Amino acid sequence: MTITSPTPSETTTELESQVRSYSRSWPVTFDRAVGATMYDTDGNAYIDFFAGAGSLNYGHNDPALKKVLLDYLARDGIVHSLDMFTAAREEFLTTFADTILRPRGLDHKVVFPGPGGANAVEAALKLARKVTGRESVISFTNAFHGMTLGALSVTGNAMKRGGAGVPLVHATPMPYDDYFDGDVQDFLYLERLLTDSGGGLNQPAAVIVETIQGEGGINAARAEWLRNLADLCKRHGILLIVDDIQMGCGRTGGFFSFEEAGIVPDIITLSKSISGYGLPMALTLVRPELDIWEPGEHNGTFRGSNPAFVTATEAIRRYWSDDTLERSTISRGLAIESRFNALVARYESYGLVAKGRGLARGLQFPSGELAGRVTKEAFAGGLLVETSGPDDEVVKLLPPLTISPAEFEAGMRILEQAVVTVLEN
Amino acid sequence: MTITSPTPSETTTELESQVRSYSRSWPVTFDRAVGATMYDTDGNAYIDFFAGAGSLNYGHNDPALKKVLLDYLARDGIVHSLDMFTAAREEFLTTFADTILRPRGLDHKVVFPGPGGANAVEAALKLARKVTGRESVISFTNAFHGMTLGALSVTGNAMKRGGAGVPLVHATPMPYDDYFDGDVQDFLYLERLLTDSGGGLNQPAAVIVETIQGEGGINAARAEWLRNLADLCKRHGILLIVDDIQMGCGRTGGFFSFEEAGIVPDIITLSKSISGYGLPMALTLVRPELDIWEPGEHNGTFRGSNPAFVTATEAIRRYWSDDTLERSTISRGLAIESRFNALVARYESYGLVAKGRGLARGLQFPSGELAGRVTKEAFAGGLLVETSGPDDEVVKLLPPLTISPAEFEAGMRILEQAVVTVLEN
Amino acid sequence: MTITSPTPSETTTELESQVRSYSRSWPVTFDRAVGATMYDTDGNAYIDFFAGAGSLNYGHNDPALKKVLLDYLARDGIVHSLDMFTAAREEFLTTFADTILRPRGLDHKVVFPGPGGANAVEAALKLARKVTGRESVISFTNAFHGMTLGALSVTGNAMKRGGAGVPLVHATPMPYDDYFDGDVQDFLYLERLLTDSGGGLNQPAAVIVETIQGEGGINAARAEWLRNLADLCKRHGILLIVDDIQMGCGRTGGFFSFEEAGIVPDIITLSKSISGYGLPMALTLVRPELDIWEPGEHNGTFRGSNPAFVTATEAIRRYWSDDTLERSTISRGLAIESRFNALVARYESYGLVAKGRGLARGLQFPSGELAGRVTKEAFAGGLLVETSGPDDEVVKLLPPLTISPAEFEAGMRILEQAVVTVLEN
Amino acid sequence: MTITSPTPSETTTELESQVRSYSRSWPVTFDRAVGATMYDTDGNAYIDFFAGAGSLNYGHNDPALKKVLLDYLARDGIVHSLDMFTAAREEFLTTFADTILRPRGLDHKVVFPGPGGANAVEAALKLARKVTGRESVISFTNAFHGMTLGALSVTGNAMKRGGAGVPLVHATPMPYDDYFDGDVQDFLYLERLLTDSGGGLNQPAAVIVETIQGEGGINAARAEWLRNLADLCKRHGILLIVDDIQMGCGRTGGFFSFEEAGIVPDIITLSKSISGYGLPMALTLVRPELDIWEPGEHNGTFRGSNPAFVTATEAIRRYWSDDTLERSTISRGLAIESRFNALVARYESYGLVAKGRGLARGLQFPSGELAGRVTKEAFAGGLLVETSGPDDEVVKLLPPLTISPAEFEAGMRILEQAVVTVLEN
Repeated sequence: MTITSPTPSETTTELESQVRSYSRSWPVTFDRAVGATMYDTDGNAYIDFFAGAGSLNYGHNDPALKKVLLDYLARDGIVHSLDMFTAAREEFLTTFADTILRPRGLDHKVVFPGPGGANAVEAALKLARKVTGRESVISFTNAFHGMTLGALSVTGNAMKRGGAGVPLVHATPMPYDDYFDGDVQDFLYLERLLTDSGGGLNQPAAVIVETIQGEGGINAARAEWLRNLADLCKRHGILLIVDDIQMGCGRTGGFFSFEEAGIVPDIITLSKSISGYGLPMALTLVRPELDIWEPGEHNGTFRGSNPAFVTATEAIRRYWSDDTLERSTISRGLAIESRFNALVARYESYGLVAKGRGLARGLQFPSGELAGRVTKEAFAGGLLVETSGPDDEVVKLLPPLTISPAEFEAGMRILEQAVVTVLEN
Repeated sequence: MTITSPTPSETTTELESQVRSYSRSWPVTFDRAVGATMYDTDGNAYIDFFAGAGSLNYGHNDPALKKVLLDYLARDGIVHSLDMFTAAREEFLTTFADTILRPRGLDHKVVFPGPGGANAVEAALKLARKVTGRESVISFTNAFHGMTLGALSVTGNAMKRGGAGVPLVHATPMPYDDYFDGDVQDFLYLERLLTDSGGGLNQPAAVIVETIQGEGGINAARAEWLRNLADLCKRHGILLIVDDIQMGCGRTGGFFSFEEAGIVPDIITLSKSISGYGLPMALTLVRPELDIWEPGEHNGTFRGSNPAFVTATEAIRRYWSDDTLERSTISRGLAIESRFNALVARYESYGLVAKGRGLARGLQFPSGELAGRVTKEAFAGGLLVETSGPDDEVVKLLPPLTISPAEFEAGMRILEQAVVTVLEN
Repeated sequence: MTITSPTPSETTTELESQVRSYSRSWPVTFDRAVGATMYDTDGNAYIDFFAGAGSLNYGHNDPALKKVLLDYLARDGIVHSLDMFTAAREEFLTTFADTILRPRGLDHKVVFPGPGGANAVEAALKLARKVTGRESVISFTNAFHGMTLGALSVTGNAMKRGGAGVPLVHATPMPYDDYFDGDVQDFLYLERLLTDSGGGLNQPAAVIVETIQGEGGINAARAEWLRNLADLCKRHGILLIVDDIQMGCGRTGGFFSFEEAGIVPDIITLSKSISGYGLPMALTLVRPELDIWEPGEHNGTFRGSNPAFVTATEAIRRYWSDDTLERSTISRGLAIESRFNALVARYESYGLVAKGRGLARGLQFPSGELAGRVTKEAFAGGLLVETSGPDDEVVKLLPPLTISPAEFEAGMRILEQAVVTVLEN
Repeated sequence: MTITSPTPSETTTELESQVRSYSRSWPVTFDRAVGATMYDTDGNAYIDFFAGAGSLNYGHNDPALKKVLLDYLARDGIVHSLDMFTAAREEFLTTFADTILRPRGLDHKVVFPGPGGANAVEAALKLARKVTGRESVISFTNAFHGMTLGALSVTGNAMKRGGAGVPLVHATPMPYDDYFDGDVQDFLYLERLLTDSGGGLNQPAAVIVETIQGEGGINAARAEWLRNLADLCKRHGILLIVDDIQMGCGRTGGFFSFEEAGIVPDIITLSKSISGYGLPMALTLVRPELDIWEPGEHNGTFRGSNPAFVTATEAIRRYWSDDTLERSTISRGLAIESRFNALVARYESYGLVAKGRGLARGLQFPSGELAGRVTKEAFAGGLLVETSGPDDEVVKLLPPLTISPAEFEAGMRILEQAVVTVLEN
């Protein structure tokens, strides 16, 4: 099936900056969305294996979350309140602490850093630097942490870095797990530099890491690598920041993506799916002993959006009171892995690679051109799925964790067919 | 009247970082809000002359905006969609262009830079630097532009700058209008440096300016100063960025705060009240010839929050189809000015100063201590009003533009009484 | 008289980088020099009112210095010894302390920072930053401190700054004395920024200043301005660095150019004439309490050139054991001033300005073009004199302090005649 | 034999900053020096295997050089002349071009960057950045390039970096040859980052490298590694800067230390032994197409010291007109290597390592403490030899290339005896 979709008016397109990007891949006008299905203005349905780049782990407009949100708005619950105390905020804080933090043995303090992920990362970097009195941060190859100046300096993508207009400094990239296909011992270079007084590396305040690099191509670090990284940080007095903005909130199974590795980061960033409803919200979690800012030393207008608190609280209650979602995510992830492996075997000569963990999955093609043709073909078939990786060579699957079996199956079939069509033509 | 209010549980307080600030001034738990009135969890009412630091120009939960928001959410309008085309987004774009931009002769392109004001500022600075190939930016004394690394570097406040943990570079502060009480010719130093090949100033990419410095103490630049600044920028090939995040969206009368001066900035930032409902949203408006970014060179997860588009569109329709709101804002502003002048005259020995323009008004006290006592007294009387300025010496009034006459009168009386109480005791 | 001089072979010219500059103004090949007279390879004589840009305060090849130098070299005195103890070094240190420092009440420690002025400045900036823990430095408009990265960042000249290839940061230029022709109160902007917690100026580690800006156009700061600057630094806990590289060693009368103002800088840089014989040598003098470097934290290969120590010691003994030279310098400076004033009066319509102090004198023309014609005409008449200032509009006189009356008179006449020729043709 | 030496007066010591270092290792006062022998003020003789850290390749006060120097000074040859044309300068330029550059196929232009090595490095970095329009530079672990801000940023030593007082940016350290004992393929990380658009490395303007790291512990890069580095630079459009300040001028055999590898750097820095007599002098050699500076864009007071030109010219004539010195240097280097290998074998359990090439030789001990005891013992025996390496664990031999057979033998015996004494006690 190929959908004939409404394209936006030329007038509208011209009103906006050429910097827009996703609307180029999917040039239709969306209107409604429920669960894993999006509808354009003509009523055409699309299965969403992109999920707002990880912002819609519970799907679009989850009915339970929608209900509390409508109720809250209808009764004139306060919407905007900066960082004042509100009933909604307090309920979120206690629910988050009781259901998420404490059961996982985390005693971190919650910073509301601003509405988006970049705010969470900026707050993390600022605090790590202030606490340690050092400027430098270790980032990893193909990392993505955001587009503000601080976040961009620890991001790998050359095109995005080029947008900064100033030299990006105070960060040094190190090889991510498996960067050399296992040929080089983990952290060989980083640890040598840290112990070599003549190495020339500025002593780092922190290491910032994603457990799985989503934008970087669904590169999943091994649990052992993460443990060794955490250990290295501890031995050298470096703070460990896990940026869990895209991979947290259940994307890999557990609420935090680092749980499987059994590590406890000093600072954790969350955003994207934390509100549960696609609303702007972000958190920076910091070990209590790092909480040294003065009141107001980091602030911001949208540091506490109550509608987001309301849906976030409900999402936690609904999905994290037991391990149902976690088990389902892991099992579905394995299902994708298995189907990807079948494609890898079938098209052995292409050297496809199945990547990922939980419901963050990637199928790596030999070129970005091929991967792009697959996502284009998938879109023509009614599936939204994007590419990532330095050369856009990885087809990246981030379906809602709560996707229905039927939507899941339909989506997978469209994708598989798209692969077949592209590779056999 | 003194309100006995509910204070939040100690447990809740301990869950959050000590960086929280507003909840220290107003240690009650808010629950509901309508128009210019907020209610705590015990049902006590407070008149809001703070308006989310300028994010609630149309008051809390404006009924017309609430209606379209509830309708949109109820019918499962798409909520999260990154920068894809959506019906809500297109409606916002055309409405914004037709009602706001074009009638004012502005042909700027719209960038959706991310959910908050700092994103808008970061995008503005990045683009200005990329376009000009220069790094340096001129900021002004007592400016406030945000807390991410780029925005912080053009912000004046020493405590907030100290939070960065790295040296803030690529920006040079210049004296804002009236910094020397009129004793020094405007732009004397800046213009000399720009024309002196031995001056040592890195040639700037841009000047970033607020027409009224809200955080800086309600310092309102004269229209003539702004015109001269715009002229200076043009003569020296420097881009002019007006940060209209707090003073735009009608706060001073016209939609943009720079309209009165008759200038056309190269880049404009908007946030705070742009959604109309206190929802996170931000815009960076750029002259068409500056729109040189590649697709995706600046991006972000929350660059298009549809609920915010829906309320923003309705707010524009409702409040900016004619000049009713604009005239009302100006007239009310003059009313405050007049009442402030009476206080200034009554307490001549204190050297109070009435400041501001439109409904951004300030009453400057000889010390932050006195101003703080006034806001504390006001809060005890049921009015939310904060201080600003380098020494928190200015009581800052940002009431909703749509405040009812009764709320307005009640609020002003509480404030005036607070001044009397503090200065006469 | 016009001299027919030997121009260097084209071959030679092509071997060297195009960055060479003085050889463009004076395209002859020099061979010998004594006192204030230089000889080209054809034996033509030139009177030198440039004195190695202040490196030859005692003239070329002073006979007394030459004698000790030849003796030292002949007896195989050690030439190169890094910072080892040598007899020549100890003799210099004790002579410098006994004859220069102690009689002036200075208890500064001596750092040998490297062979040239830029090393002295780099050492000063490094130490000031380390001591205070701050990065930022205040420099002045039209300052010149050197061409290495640290020194260049506090230098004003835009062309030279452009050579750095990286953004020059951590320095903010402030107006030098009389930058606004007396219309603005001294230090108005700097002091306001330092006391304004919202001013946006990074708290400075140090102020670096020349008492007379040689490269900047012979701008002589008033003693009162220097005193106020020293006082401002003390009040704000900022270190005061006086860069006395060009104006020290007697150029203005006293050994240090700041003596007249009665101030005591925290850090002093010396170079150029310190060896007395034009040999590379530099000193950084620091208050004892600032001497916090670890051994070797600043080092360098040429931090103690013994031939320079030998001539430096002899120069101090010969010229600074009494005040003969100081009085002569002041009196000759006044003679130049008087003759310049006559020119100023004679060519009133040109708005010439006589500038300077001691034997650092300038005659400012309305344009660099006119000043350049004067120096060219002077060269044709057998006098070396260069221009300085942002537009090369100042003819700059730095004759040897020890110049003979005959050479002085001859040089002045050539210069006066050149002015007449240029302005009357 | 243990020498009883004169220690400097306490008074003298107190006049100088605590930053002095070599005088701590060798606390005697030197007075005279000839060839490879230095004499203290009591007439005690010391054999010099340190040679001014490579500044005295032709020994102290070489008689032939001394003669031309005395002649030049006696006949009042011009001493100081900035970058004017002088007979001495032209003679140096033509001799250097004819005898050194052209026979080696180098068409580089000569920049006189200032009197010391740091000036040469600063000029190299500035020019590389200006030419490429990029800021970042690749340096290597344990590199040493100087103490000014630009040079320090590409230097490895943590203590020296700490002296800067500002974050050192715009440079990234990469592993030097054999940093991982051959376990990791050369340039694995650097080349991956350069070709990975998501690697996060700022595209470098240049690579700066020493062929043998003197301060870094006499780490000699293999010719193959240097060739591969040159090739990598060419493939990626990165300028190759060889810092030949310590290893050039014949230290490794050929005039330039990179000759053996057969590479042609884009930029070459020379200093230390270039004057031949221990006088401050430095050169930056640049490919003609890189010579894009404007006249005066890089300048400096001591950019052309004629006494140094005179001795440099004579040194080139005397030592580089044929290959006598080159062959002798290589042969003597092999002699040291052979004697070091005997020590390595004799003390197998200590894991000594013989390092180096030409007459830059090192004997690595298991700890800095042992190496320090050896140099101390050697000094007691009348030999000057210093340590280097990140932990000062390498005894570093840089004897004059022209050392007499007797001095050489005596020095080697003292050193060998010191090793025996330390390791067998």
